[in-house]
Amino acid sequence: MPPPLLVHFTAGQSGSWQVTRHATVIGAPLPQAARLHVEVGTHPGAAGIWCLRGVASHARYATASEVGTLGARQPALGRADATCAALIPIQKSEQWWALAQDERRAIFEERSRHTARSLRHLPAVARRLHHCRDLGEAFDFLTWFEFAPAYGDAFEDLVGELRGTEEWRYVVRETDIRVTLA
Amino acid sequence: MPPPLLVHFTAGQSGSWQVTRHATVIGAPLPQAARLHVEVGTHPGAAGIWCLRGVASHARYATASEVGTLGARQPALGRADATCAALIPIQKSEQWWALAQDERRAIFEERSRHTARSLRHLPAVARRLHHCRDLGEAFDFLTWFEFAPAYGDAFEDLVGELRGTEEWRYVVRETDIRVTLA
Repeated sequence: MPPPLLVHFTAGQSGSWQVTRHATVIGAPLPQAARLHVEVGTHPGAAGIWCLRGVASHARYATASEVGTLGARQPALGRADATCAALIPIQKSEQWWALAQDERRAIFEERSRHTARSLRHLPAVARRLHHCRDLGEAFDFLTWFEFAPAYGDAFEDLVGELRGTEEWRYVVRETDIRVTLA
Repeated sequence: MPPPLLVHFTAGQSGSWQVTRHATVIGAPLPQAARLHVEVGTHPGAAGIWCLRGVASHARYATASEVGTLGARQPALGRADATCAALIPIQKSEQWWALAQDERRAIFEERSRHTARSLRHLPAVARRLHHCRDLGEAFDFLTWFEFAPAYGDAFEDLVGELRGTEEWRYVVRETDIRVTLA
């Protein structure tokens, strides 16, 4: 487990990723932008219409067994053929955060099967989760996914499935931004 | 559960708390200072010799049962007779953070009895835990304790007990700063 990694996602006129879709799933929308710039490190290099930041750090719910399975199957970011990506910022309700660790875990995995459902899409989908609630950001999580264009429909199935789970009843704000390397 | 609360601890020549003891338990020391200023909010008002910041936010290990017991017994900060306090910044090893959630929980509570030991000192000791690893700070946690002068010896027992647990084998940096309202 490497040290916490601060990442900035800046939407604007520049950046390697071209925005192809921007949908407000629930809650307050984010302004639309043409491109997305993803930068690892403490200082964002780009000014933009908006900038979201989060920290990729230790796992909060995964058991040792799940960490082992994920580690064996999850690919790295930046694969040459993974030219499609999704940035999905999510905020959960105060009710979620008031739950104890065992209650959140039970909803997250035992009942919603978040990890189990995601595992079925490995190694096709690479993923990095960024935490941002403790940074004082508007969202609680920024999840970044990368996959090949041919995997687009299957990725849609995963996202749709998760949105139907008990865990998602606690999501009060969500935006779904799709981008391609272009 | 209120929203995450950012708190700055600034050591220097000013602040409500007078430093009475400053001991490096393990790892790199923090510079000594005469006083400590504790400020809730995003902008620290005081300049100092050092400033540590952390976020009090949701519980990471407590079960629903433990959250209920803690909630019923833990007092608020700022009691008139609680004129003694301790600030104990701690950093855990990379080995700790590489463990899965169930492994960390087993060490923290099932084997080290962190919450169970602490419960025996409620309501005498008020406590607020601040998380700071994801903020890019040098320490991972800042724990702030408040108690009456007559409880000093019993508080010493708690701190000593915890330092003898399996959990503490993962502590690579710790400073113990004692202060009084004066």
